[in-house]
Amino acid sequence: MNREELFANIQRKKSFLCVGLDTDIKKIPLHLLDCENPIFEFNKAIVDATAEYCIAYKPNLAFYESLGIEGWKSLELTVKYIRNNYPDQFLIADAKRGDIGNTSQLYARAFFEAFDFDSVTVAPYMGEDSVSPFLSYPNKWVILLALTSNKGAFDFQFMENKLDEKLFEKVLKTSKTWGNEDNLMYVVGATKADMLQQIRTLVPDNFLLVPGVGAQGGSLEDVAKFGMNRQCGLIVNSSRAIIYADNTENFAQAARLEAQKVQQAMSQLLTQYL
Amino acid sequence: MNREELFANIQRKKSFLCVGLDTDIKKIPLHLLDCENPIFEFNKAIVDATAEYCIAYKPNLAFYESLGIEGWKSLELTVKYIRNNYPDQFLIADAKRGDIGNTSQLYARAFFEAFDFDSVTVAPYMGEDSVSPFLSYPNKWVILLALTSNKGAFDFQFMENKLDEKLFEKVLKTSKTWGNEDNLMYVVGATKADMLQQIRTLVPDNFLLVPGVGAQGGSLEDVAKFGMNRQCGLIVNSSRAIIYADNTENFAQAARLEAQKVQQAMSQLLTQYL
Repeated sequence: MNREELFANIQRKKSFLCVGLDTDIKKIPLHLLDCENPIFEFNKAIVDATAEYCIAYKPNLAFYESLGIEGWKSLELTVKYIRNNYPDQFLIADAKRGDIGNTSQLYARAFFEAFDFDSVTVAPYMGEDSVSPFLSYPNKWVILLALTSNKGAFDFQFMENKLDEKLFEKVLKTSKTWGNEDNLMYVVGATKADMLQQIRTLVPDNFLLVPGVGAQGGSLEDVAKFGMNRQCGLIVNSSRAIIYADNTENFAQAARLEAQKVQQAMSQLLTQYL
Repeated sequence: MNREELFANIQRKKSFLCVGLDTDIKKIPLHLLDCENPIFEFNKAIVDATAEYCIAYKPNLAFYESLGIEGWKSLELTVKYIRNNYPDQFLIADAKRGDIGNTSQLYARAFFEAFDFDSVTVAPYMGEDSVSPFLSYPNKWVILLALTSNKGAFDFQFMENKLDEKLFEKVLKTSKTWGNEDNLMYVVGATKADMLQQIRTLVPDNFLLVPGVGAQGGSLEDVAKFGMNRQCGLIVNSSRAIIYADNTENFAQAARLEAQKVQQAMSQLLTQYL
Protein backbone atom coordinates (compact mmCIF):
# COMPACT_ATOMS: atom_id res chain seq x y z
CA MET A 1 0.00 0.00 0.00
CA ASN A 2 1.34 3.44 -0.85
CA ARG A 3 1.00 6.70 1.07
CA GLU A 4 -1.85 8.07 -1.02
CA GLU A 5 -3.91 4.91 -0.53
CA LEU A 6 -3.25 4.94 3.19
CA PHE A 7 -4.35 8.56 3.47
CA ALA A 8 -7.43 7.89 1.35
CA ASN A 9 -8.42 5.09 3.74
CA ILE A 10 -7.98 7.40 6.71
CA GLN A 11 -10.21 10.03 5.10
CA ARG A 12 -12.87 7.59 4.02
CA LYS A 13 -13.10 5.82 7.38
CA LYS A 14 -12.44 8.95 9.46
CA SER A 15 -10.04 6.88 11.49
CA PHE A 16 -6.32 6.47 12.03
CA LEU A 17 -6.73 3.54 14.39
CA CYS A 18 -4.55 0.46 14.27
CA VAL A 19 -5.76 -2.53 16.25
CA GLY A 20 -2.86 -4.42 17.81
CA LEU A 21 -3.31 -8.17 17.65
CA ASP A 22 -1.35 -9.00 20.82
CA THR A 23 -3.25 -12.24 21.09
CA ASP A 24 -2.35 -14.15 24.23
CA ILE A 25 -3.65 -17.69 24.62
CA LYS A 26 -3.88 -17.01 28.37
CA LYS A 27 -6.18 -14.02 27.93
CA ILE A 28 -8.67 -15.01 25.25
CA PRO A 29 -12.19 -16.17 26.21
CA LEU A 30 -12.21 -19.73 27.53
CA HIS A 31 -14.87 -20.99 25.10
CA LEU A 32 -12.44 -20.44 22.20
CA LEU A 33 -9.97 -22.97 23.57
CA ASP A 34 -12.14 -25.76 22.15
CA CYS A 35 -11.58 -24.53 18.58
CA GLU A 36 -8.94 -26.11 16.37
CA ASN A 37 -7.01 -22.84 16.28
CA PRO A 38 -8.09 -20.60 19.17
CA ILE A 39 -5.70 -17.75 18.35
CA PHE A 40 -6.91 -17.51 14.78
CA GLU A 41 -10.57 -17.80 15.80
CA PHE A 42 -10.08 -14.94 18.25
CA ASN A 43 -8.29 -12.77 15.67
CA LYS A 44 -10.91 -13.49 13.02
CA ALA A 45 -13.72 -12.45 15.34
CA ILE A 46 -11.83 -9.31 16.44
CA VAL A 47 -11.07 -8.34 12.85
CA ASP A 48 -14.64 -8.89 11.67
CA ALA A 49 -15.88 -6.79 14.58
CA THR A 50 -13.45 -3.89 14.25
CA ALA A 51 -12.50 -3.58 10.56
CA GLU A 52 -15.10 -0.87 9.96
CA TYR A 53 -13.42 1.40 12.50
CA CYS A 54 -9.72 0.94 11.86
CA ILE A 55 -7.29 1.28 8.98
CA ALA A 56 -4.55 -1.08 10.13
CA TYR A 57 -3.83 -4.26 12.06
CA LYS A 58 -0.60 -4.95 13.89
CA PRO A 59 0.11 -8.50 14.98
CA ASN A 60 2.82 -8.45 17.64
CA LEU A 61 5.13 -11.23 16.55
CA ALA A 62 6.24 -12.21 20.06
CA PHE A 63 2.76 -13.46 20.90
CA TYR A 64 2.86 -15.86 17.94
CA GLU A 65 6.49 -16.90 18.27
CA SER A 66 5.98 -17.82 21.92
CA LEU A 67 3.67 -20.64 20.76
CA GLY A 68 6.21 -22.15 18.38
CA ILE A 69 5.05 -23.54 15.05
CA GLU A 70 1.37 -23.44 16.06
CA GLY A 71 1.74 -19.73 16.65
CA TRP A 72 3.22 -19.15 13.20
CA LYS A 73 0.31 -21.08 11.69
CA SER A 74 -2.12 -18.79 13.51
CA LEU A 75 -0.25 -15.75 12.24
CA GLU A 76 -0.29 -17.01 8.68
CA LEU A 77 -4.02 -17.67 8.81
CA THR A 78 -4.63 -14.24 10.33
CA VAL A 79 -2.64 -12.37 7.70
CA LYS A 80 -4.30 -14.28 4.86
CA TYR A 81 -7.74 -13.72 6.35
CA ILE A 82 -7.24 -9.97 6.58
CA ARG A 83 -5.69 -9.78 3.08
CA ASN A 84 -8.56 -11.71 1.51
CA ASN A 85 -11.44 -10.08 3.34
CA TYR A 86 -10.24 -6.57 4.11
CA PRO A 87 -7.75 -5.63 1.38
CA ASP A 88 -7.82 -1.96 2.43
CA GLN A 89 -6.21 -2.70 5.80
CA PHE A 90 -2.55 -1.76 6.27
CA LEU A 91 -0.71 -4.70 7.80
CA ILE A 92 2.13 -4.13 10.26
CA ALA A 93 4.45 -6.90 11.43
CA ASP A 94 5.47 -5.65 14.85
CA ALA A 95 8.70 -7.60 14.89
CA LYS A 96 11.42 -5.08 15.83
CA ARG A 97 13.96 -6.87 13.66
CA GLY A 98 17.35 -5.61 12.47
CA ASP A 99 20.65 -7.34 11.70
CA ILE A 100 23.64 -7.06 9.35
CA GLY A 101 22.74 -6.47 5.70
CA ASN A 102 22.60 -10.01 4.35
CA THR A 103 20.52 -11.07 7.36
CA SER A 104 18.09 -8.13 7.26
CA GLN A 105 17.52 -9.03 3.63
CA LEU A 106 16.18 -12.38 4.82
CA TYR A 107 13.97 -10.77 7.45
CA ALA A 108 12.57 -8.59 4.67
CA ARG A 109 11.93 -11.73 2.64
CA ALA A 110 10.17 -13.26 5.66
CA PHE A 111 7.74 -10.40 6.20
CA PHE A 112 7.25 -9.12 2.65
CA GLU A 113 7.38 -12.40 0.72
CA ALA A 114 6.70 -15.41 2.98
CA PHE A 115 4.04 -13.20 4.63
CA ASP A 116 2.40 -10.37 2.74
CA PHE A 117 2.80 -7.60 5.33
CA ASP A 118 2.83 -3.94 4.23
CA SER A 119 5.37 -2.94 6.83
CA VAL A 120 7.66 -4.15 9.57
CA THR A 121 8.98 -2.45 12.70
CA VAL A 122 12.78 -2.29 12.70
CA ALA A 123 15.29 -1.44 15.46
CA PRO A 124 17.92 1.17 14.49
CA TYR A 125 20.90 0.17 16.67
CA MET A 126 22.84 -1.56 13.87
CA GLY A 127 22.52 1.35 11.43
CA GLU A 128 21.95 1.77 7.72
CA ASP A 129 22.78 -1.64 6.28
CA SER A 130 20.46 -3.25 8.84
CA VAL A 131 17.54 -1.11 7.65
CA SER A 132 18.03 -0.53 3.92
CA PRO A 133 17.22 -4.09 2.73
CA PHE A 134 13.64 -3.53 3.92
CA LEU A 135 13.43 -0.27 1.96
CA SER A 136 14.04 -1.83 -1.43
CA TYR A 137 10.54 -3.33 -1.75
CA PRO A 138 8.10 -1.09 -3.67
CA ASN A 139 5.04 -0.05 -1.66
CA LYS A 140 6.41 -1.71 1.48
CA TRP A 141 7.44 0.18 4.58
CA VAL A 142 9.98 0.25 7.36
CA ILE A 143 8.63 1.54 10.66
CA LEU A 144 11.80 2.49 12.51
CA LEU A 145 11.95 2.70 16.30
CA ALA A 146 12.67 6.29 17.30
CA LEU A 147 11.16 7.08 20.69
CA THR A 148 9.44 4.14 22.31
CA SER A 149 6.59 4.17 24.84
CA ASN A 150 8.26 2.16 27.61
CA LYS A 151 10.24 3.16 30.70
CA GLY A 152 13.46 1.76 29.23
CA ALA A 153 13.27 4.43 26.50
CA PHE A 154 15.08 6.70 28.96
CA ASP A 155 18.11 4.41 29.20
CA PHE A 156 19.62 5.22 25.80
CA GLN A 157 17.17 7.08 23.52
CA PHE A 158 17.71 10.39 25.37
CA MET A 159 21.51 10.17 25.42
CA GLU A 160 22.75 13.55 24.21
CA ASN A 161 25.81 14.27 22.07
CA LYS A 162 27.95 17.40 22.07
CA LEU A 163 25.54 19.14 19.70
CA ASP A 164 22.68 18.66 22.22
CA GLU A 165 21.24 16.09 19.87
CA LYS A 166 19.52 13.13 21.51
CA LEU A 167 19.96 9.60 20.19
CA PHE A 168 16.34 9.37 18.96
CA GLU A 169 16.80 12.70 17.14
CA LYS A 170 19.97 11.41 15.53
CA VAL A 171 18.07 8.28 14.48
CA LEU A 172 15.40 10.47 12.85
CA LYS A 173 17.88 12.75 11.09
CA THR A 174 20.25 10.03 9.92
CA SER A 175 17.60 7.59 8.73
CA LYS A 176 15.89 10.29 6.63
CA THR A 177 18.79 9.93 4.23
CA TRP A 178 18.13 6.18 3.87
CA GLY A 179 14.50 6.40 2.86
CA ASN A 180 11.72 8.91 2.42
CA GLU A 181 8.14 9.61 3.44
CA ASP A 182 6.94 6.95 0.99
CA ASN A 183 8.74 4.02 2.58
CA LEU A 184 9.76 5.07 6.08
CA MET A 185 7.62 5.64 9.17
CA TYR A 186 8.71 6.03 12.78
CA VAL A 187 7.57 4.62 16.11
CA VAL A 188 6.92 7.42 18.59
CA GLY A 189 5.24 6.43 21.86
CA ALA A 190 2.06 8.24 22.90
CA THR A 191 3.47 8.38 26.44
CA LYS A 192 5.91 10.97 25.08
CA ALA A 193 3.31 13.07 23.22
CA ASP A 194 4.89 16.33 24.39
CA MET A 195 7.92 15.45 22.26
CA LEU A 196 5.84 15.15 19.11
CA GLN A 197 5.92 18.84 18.26
CA GLN A 198 9.69 18.84 18.10
CA ILE A 199 9.78 15.49 16.30
CA ARG A 200 7.53 17.01 13.61
CA THR A 201 10.18 19.66 12.93
CA LEU A 202 12.58 16.82 12.06
CA VAL A 203 10.20 14.54 10.14
CA PRO A 204 7.28 16.73 9.02
CA ASP A 205 5.96 14.40 6.33
CA ASN A 206 6.59 10.88 7.57
CA PHE A 207 3.85 8.79 9.08
CA LEU A 208 4.29 8.01 12.77
CA LEU A 209 3.12 4.77 14.36
CA VAL A 210 2.05 5.71 17.87
CA PRO A 211 1.68 2.97 20.47
CA GLY A 212 0.90 3.61 24.12
CA VAL A 213 -2.63 5.01 23.88
CA GLY A 214 -4.97 2.96 26.07
CA ALA A 215 -3.42 0.47 28.50
CA GLN A 216 -0.11 2.32 28.56
CA GLY A 217 -1.76 5.67 29.41
CA GLY A 218 -0.98 8.02 26.47
CA SER A 219 -3.48 10.72 25.44
CA LEU A 220 -5.06 10.56 21.98
CA GLU A 221 -5.87 14.28 22.06
CA ASP A 222 -2.24 15.24 22.71
CA VAL A 223 -1.00 12.91 20.00
CA ALA A 224 -3.32 14.50 17.43
CA LYS A 225 -2.61 18.04 18.61
CA PHE A 226 1.16 17.73 18.42
CA GLY A 227 1.62 15.01 15.83
CA MET A 228 -0.89 15.41 13.01
CA ASN A 229 0.29 16.69 9.63
CA ARG A 230 -1.54 17.55 6.38
CA GLN A 231 -1.97 13.89 5.48
CA CYS A 232 -2.85 12.95 9.05
CA GLY A 233 0.57 11.32 9.36
CA LEU A 234 -0.52 9.25 12.34
CA ILE A 235 -1.38 5.62 12.89
CA VAL A 236 -2.37 5.25 16.52
CA ASN A 237 -2.29 1.74 17.91
CA SER A 238 -4.44 0.30 20.64
CA SER A 239 -4.14 -3.35 21.57
CA ARG A 240 -5.24 -4.53 24.99
CA ALA A 241 -7.91 -1.87 25.58
CA ILE A 242 -9.75 -3.07 22.46
CA ILE A 243 -9.10 -6.77 22.07
CA TYR A 244 -9.53 -7.60 25.76
CA ALA A 245 -12.45 -5.23 26.41
CA ASP A 246 -14.40 -8.30 27.54
CA ASN A 247 -13.55 -11.97 27.93
CA THR A 248 -16.96 -13.60 27.73
CA GLU A 249 -18.69 -14.88 24.59
CA ASN A 250 -19.50 -11.22 23.97
CA PHE A 251 -15.82 -10.28 23.48
CA ALA A 252 -16.05 -9.33 19.79
CA GLN A 253 -19.02 -7.02 20.27
CA ALA A 254 -17.23 -5.36 23.21
CA ALA A 255 -14.10 -4.91 21.06
CA ARG A 256 -16.27 -3.40 18.34
CA LEU A 257 -17.73 -0.85 20.73
CA GLU A 258 -14.26 0.10 22.03
CA ALA A 259 -12.92 0.50 18.48
CA GLN A 260 -15.96 2.56 17.53
CA LYS A 261 -15.42 4.82 20.55
CA VAL A 262 -11.82 5.47 19.51
CA GLN A 263 -12.86 6.00 15.87
CA GLN A 264 -15.44 8.60 16.91
CA ALA A 265 -12.84 10.51 18.88
CA MET A 266 -10.48 10.27 15.90
CA SER A 267 -13.15 11.52 13.52
CA GLN A 268 -13.52 14.68 15.63
CA LEU A 269 -9.76 15.17 15.83
CA LEU A 270 -9.43 14.80 12.05
CA THR A 271 -12.09 17.49 11.57
CA GLN A 272 -10.37 19.70 14.12
CA TYR A 273 -6.75 19.46 12.96
CA LEU A 274 -6.73 18.39 9.31
CA MET B 1 24.20 -24.08 30.75
CA ASN B 2 26.06 -22.06 33.38
CA ARG B 3 29.38 -20.24 33.09
CA GLU B 4 31.45 -22.95 34.77
CA GLU B 5 30.10 -25.60 32.40
CA LEU B 6 30.75 -23.41 29.40
CA PHE B 7 34.34 -22.78 30.48
CA ALA B 8 34.84 -26.49 31.21
CA ASN B 9 33.72 -27.30 27.66
CA ILE B 10 36.14 -24.74 26.26
CA GLN B 11 39.03 -26.24 28.24
CA ARG B 12 38.17 -29.83 27.38
CA LYS B 13 37.74 -29.18 23.65
CA LYS B 14 40.45 -26.53 23.43
CA SER B 15 38.06 -24.49 21.39
CA PHE B 16 35.90 -21.38 21.72
CA LEU B 17 34.37 -21.78 18.28
CA CYS B 18 30.69 -21.25 17.57
CA VAL B 19 29.43 -22.49 14.23
CA GLY B 20 26.79 -20.18 12.79
CA LEU B 21 23.95 -22.04 11.14
CA ASP B 22 23.07 -19.36 8.57
CA THR B 23 21.53 -22.02 6.40
CA ASP B 24 20.32 -20.64 3.09
CA ILE B 25 18.25 -22.87 0.84
CA LYS B 26 19.90 -21.11 -2.12
CA LYS B 27 23.42 -22.04 -1.01
CA ILE B 28 23.22 -25.62 0.19
CA PRO B 29 24.41 -28.48 -2.06
CA LEU B 30 21.87 -29.28 -4.76
CA HIS B 31 21.62 -32.99 -3.96
CA LEU B 32 20.02 -32.11 -0.59
CA LEU B 33 17.05 -30.46 -2.26
CA ASP B 34 15.55 -33.92 -2.85
CA CYS B 35 15.32 -34.59 0.90
CA GLU B 36 12.08 -34.04 2.79
CA ASN B 37 13.66 -31.26 4.81
CA PRO B 38 16.81 -29.99 3.06
CA ILE B 39 17.64 -27.32 5.65
CA PHE B 40 17.54 -29.81 8.50
CA GLU B 41 19.51 -32.42 6.55
CA PHE B 42 22.18 -29.84 5.86
CA ASN B 43 22.32 -28.71 9.50
CA LYS B 44 22.42 -32.29 10.77
CA ALA B 45 25.35 -33.13 8.52
CA ILE B 46 27.19 -29.92 9.46
CA VAL B 47 26.63 -30.53 13.17
CA ASP B 48 27.75 -34.16 13.01
CA ALA B 49 30.86 -33.06 11.13
CA THR B 50 31.84 -30.13 13.34
CA ALA B 51 30.63 -30.88 16.89
CA GLU B 52 34.02 -32.23 17.93
CA TYR B 53 35.65 -28.85 17.20
CA CYS B 54 33.16 -26.31 18.50
CA ILE B 55 31.41 -25.50 21.75
CA ALA B 56 28.37 -23.67 20.43
CA TYR B 57 25.92 -23.45 17.54
CA LYS B 58 24.15 -20.29 16.50
CA PRO B 59 21.19 -20.58 14.17
CA ASN B 60 20.48 -17.18 12.62
CA LEU B 61 16.73 -16.86 12.91
CA ALA B 62 16.27 -14.78 9.76
CA PHE B 63 17.30 -17.70 7.58
CA TYR B 64 14.54 -19.86 9.06
CA GLU B 65 11.87 -17.15 9.26
CA SER B 66 12.35 -16.31 5.60
CA LEU B 67 11.00 -19.77 4.73
CA GLY B 68 7.82 -19.36 6.76
CA ILE B 69 6.45 -22.31 8.71
CA GLU B 70 8.71 -24.80 6.91
CA GLY B 71 11.67 -22.81 8.16
CA TRP B 72 10.47 -22.93 11.75
CA LYS B 73 10.05 -26.71 11.44
CA SER B 74 13.67 -26.98 10.27
CA LEU B 75 14.80 -24.86 13.20
CA GLU B 76 12.86 -26.96 15.68
CA LEU B 77 14.33 -30.20 14.29
CA THR B 78 17.82 -28.70 14.37
CA VAL B 79 17.60 -27.53 17.97
CA LYS B 80 16.19 -30.87 19.12
CA TYR B 81 18.83 -32.78 17.20
CA ILE B 82 21.67 -30.85 18.80
CA ARG B 83 20.11 -31.06 22.28
CA ASN B 84 19.62 -34.82 22.02
CA ASN B 85 22.93 -35.74 20.43
CA TYR B 86 25.35 -33.07 21.64
CA PRO B 87 24.09 -31.92 25.05
CA ASP B 88 27.36 -30.10 25.77
CA GLN B 89 26.78 -27.58 22.98
CA PHE B 90 25.76 -24.04 23.95
CA LEU B 91 22.79 -22.98 21.81
CA ILE B 92 22.42 -19.38 20.69
CA ALA B 93 19.26 -18.03 19.06
CA ASP B 94 20.62 -15.20 16.95
CA ALA B 95 17.36 -13.31 16.90
CA LYS B 96 18.21 -9.72 17.92
CA ARG B 97 14.86 -9.33 19.65
CA GLY B 98 13.79 -6.64 22.12
CA ASP B 99 10.44 -4.96 22.88
CA ILE B 100 8.49 -3.49 25.79
CA GLY B 101 8.49 -5.62 28.96
CA ASN B 102 5.35 -7.70 28.48
CA THR B 103 6.38 -8.45 24.89
CA SER B 104 10.01 -9.32 25.64
CA GLN B 105 8.64 -11.76 28.21
CA LEU B 106 6.94 -13.58 25.34
CA TYR B 107 10.09 -13.59 23.23
CA ALA B 108 11.87 -15.13 26.22
CA ARG B 109 9.14 -17.75 26.38
CA ALA B 110 9.61 -18.40 22.65
CA PHE B 111 13.34 -19.05 22.83
CA PHE B 112 13.72 -20.53 26.32
CA GLU B 113 10.49 -22.56 26.54
CA ALA B 114 8.99 -23.25 23.08
CA PHE B 115 12.61 -23.81 21.96
CA ASP B 116 15.28 -24.90 24.42
CA PHE B 117 17.98 -22.36 23.53
CA ASP B 118 20.62 -21.43 26.12
CA SER B 119 20.77 -17.83 25.00
CA VAL B 120 19.31 -15.21 22.71
CA THR B 121 20.81 -12.10 21.13
CA VAL B 122 18.94 -8.95 22.20
CA ALA B 123 19.02 -5.36 20.87
CA PRO B 124 19.51 -2.68 23.55
CA TYR B 125 17.69 0.32 22.01
CA MET B 126 14.54 -0.02 24.16
CA GLY B 127 16.41 -0.24 27.47
CA GLU B 128 16.10 -2.19 30.68
CA ASP B 129 12.53 -3.48 30.61
CA SER B 130 13.12 -4.82 27.09
CA VAL B 131 16.07 -6.90 28.30
CA SER B 132 15.31 -7.94 31.87
CA PRO B 133 12.54 -10.49 31.10
CA PHE B 134 15.20 -12.64 29.38
CA LEU B 135 17.44 -12.43 32.47
CA SER B 136 14.97 -14.06 34.84
CA TYR B 137 15.52 -17.60 33.53
CA PRO B 138 18.11 -19.59 35.53
CA ASN B 139 21.08 -20.76 33.47
CA LYS B 140 19.83 -18.89 30.41
CA TRP B 141 21.62 -15.95 28.86
CA VAL B 142 21.08 -12.63 27.17
CA ILE B 143 23.69 -11.75 24.57
CA LEU B 144 23.26 -8.00 24.24
CA LEU B 145 24.35 -6.11 21.13
CA ALA B 146 27.14 -3.71 22.05
CA LEU B 147 29.47 -3.12 19.10
CA THR B 148 28.41 -4.92 15.96
CA SER B 149 30.60 -6.09 13.08
CA ASN B 150 28.80 -4.28 10.25
CA LYS B 151 29.38 -0.93 8.57
CA GLY B 152 26.16 0.49 10.05
CA ALA B 153 27.72 0.16 13.53
CA PHE B 154 29.24 3.59 12.90
CA ASP B 155 25.85 5.27 12.45
CA PHE B 156 24.83 5.29 16.12
CA GLN B 157 27.01 3.01 18.26
CA PHE B 158 29.89 5.52 18.28
CA MET B 159 27.75 8.55 19.14
CA GLU B 160 29.53 10.30 21.99
CA ASN B 161 27.94 12.11 24.94
CA LYS B 162 29.37 15.03 26.88
CA LEU B 163 31.42 12.70 29.08
CA ASP B 164 33.16 11.33 25.96
CA GLU B 165 31.24 8.12 26.45
CA LYS B 166 30.17 6.32 23.29
CA LEU B 167 26.73 4.74 22.96
CA PHE B 168 28.12 1.19 22.96
CA GLU B 169 30.10 2.01 26.12
CA LYS B 170 26.98 3.37 27.77
CA VAL B 171 25.17 0.17 26.77
CA LEU B 172 27.93 -1.89 28.43
CA LYS B 173 28.01 0.20 31.62
CA THR B 174 24.25 0.56 32.04
CA SER B 175 23.37 -3.04 31.27
CA LYS B 176 25.90 -4.34 33.81
CA THR B 177 23.46 -3.19 36.47
CA TRP B 178 20.67 -5.32 34.92
CA GLY B 179 22.49 -8.64 34.95
CA ASN B 180 25.88 -10.10 35.71
CA GLU B 181 28.59 -12.29 34.22
CA ASP B 182 26.43 -15.36 34.83
CA ASN B 183 23.53 -14.31 32.63
CA LEU B 184 24.76 -11.54 30.37
CA MET B 185 27.15 -11.68 27.41
CA TYR B 186 27.83 -9.03 24.77
CA VAL B 187 28.16 -9.01 21.00
CA VAL B 188 31.42 -7.36 19.96
CA GLY B 189 32.37 -7.65 16.30
CA ALA B 190 35.78 -9.07 15.38
CA THR B 191 36.07 -6.32 12.78
CA LYS B 192 36.53 -3.95 15.73
CA ALA B 193 39.11 -6.08 17.57
CA ASP B 194 41.23 -3.03 18.44
CA MET B 195 38.35 -1.85 20.65
CA LEU B 196 38.38 -5.06 22.68
CA GLN B 197 41.12 -3.97 25.06
CA GLN B 198 39.09 -0.99 26.19
CA ILE B 199 35.86 -2.99 26.25
CA ARG B 200 37.56 -5.41 28.65
CA THR B 201 38.14 -2.56 31.11
CA LEU B 202 34.35 -2.09 31.20
CA VAL B 203 33.26 -5.74 31.22
CA PRO B 204 36.27 -7.76 32.40
CA ASP B 205 34.38 -10.94 33.33
CA ASN B 206 31.51 -11.21 30.85
CA PHE B 207 31.66 -13.56 27.90
CA LEU B 208 31.76 -11.86 24.51
CA LEU B 209 30.18 -13.33 21.41
CA VAL B 210 32.41 -12.29 18.55
CA PRO B 211 31.06 -12.48 15.01
CA GLY B 212 32.95 -11.25 11.98
CA VAL B 213 35.88 -13.69 11.87
CA GLY B 214 36.04 -15.39 8.48
CA ALA B 215 33.84 -14.01 5.69
CA GLN B 216 33.61 -10.57 7.33
CA GLY B 217 37.40 -10.26 7.69
CA GLY B 218 38.13 -10.04 11.44
CA SER B 219 41.36 -11.49 12.87
CA LEU B 220 41.15 -14.37 15.35
CA GLU B 221 44.61 -13.58 16.73
CA ASP B 222 43.66 -9.99 17.55
CA VAL B 223 40.39 -11.06 19.14
CA ALA B 224 42.23 -13.48 21.45
CA LYS B 225 45.04 -11.05 22.20
CA PHE B 226 42.76 -8.18 23.20
CA GLY B 227 39.63 -9.99 24.33
CA MET B 228 40.53 -13.13 26.28
CA ASN B 229 40.06 -13.18 30.05
CA ARG B 230 40.88 -15.77 32.73
CA GLN B 231 37.91 -17.93 31.76
CA CYS B 232 38.54 -17.41 28.05
CA GLY B 233 35.49 -15.12 27.95
CA LEU B 234 35.18 -15.48 24.19
CA ILE B 235 32.84 -17.32 21.87
CA VAL B 236 34.01 -16.65 18.35
CA ASN B 237 31.49 -17.30 15.61
CA SER B 238 32.18 -18.39 12.07
CA SER B 239 29.31 -19.12 9.73
CA ARG B 240 29.82 -18.95 5.99
CA ALA B 241 33.55 -19.84 5.99
CA ILE B 242 32.72 -23.17 7.64
CA ILE B 243 29.28 -24.23 6.49
CA TYR B 244 29.82 -23.25 2.86
CA ALA B 245 33.43 -24.42 2.59
CA ASP B 246 32.27 -26.68 -0.24
CA ASN B 247 28.96 -27.22 -1.99
CA THR B 248 29.38 -30.68 -3.43
CA GLU B 249 28.44 -33.98 -1.77
CA ASN B 250 31.66 -33.54 0.18
CA PHE B 251 30.36 -30.41 1.99
CA ALA B 252 30.27 -31.86 5.49
CA GLN B 253 33.82 -33.16 5.35
CA ALA B 254 34.99 -29.77 4.04
CA ALA B 255 33.16 -28.01 6.89
CA ARG B 256 34.80 -30.41 9.34
CA LEU B 257 38.26 -29.55 8.04
CA GLU B 258 37.55 -25.82 8.27
CA ALA B 259 36.23 -26.14 11.82
CA GLN B 260 39.26 -28.25 12.77
CA LYS B 261 41.58 -25.60 11.34
CA VAL B 262 39.95 -22.89 13.45
CA GLN B 263 39.97 -25.15 16.53
CA GLN B 264 43.70 -25.79 16.12
CA ALA B 265 44.39 -22.07 15.97
CA MET B 266 42.19 -21.56 19.03
CA SER B 267 43.97 -24.32 20.93
CA GLN B 268 47.26 -22.48 20.42
CA LEU B 269 45.74 -19.16 21.46
CA LEU B 270 44.29 -20.71 24.63
CA THR B 271 47.73 -22.04 25.55
CA GLN B 272 49.29 -18.68 24.78
CA TYR B 273 46.88 -16.35 26.62
CA LEU B 274 45.08 -18.37 29.29
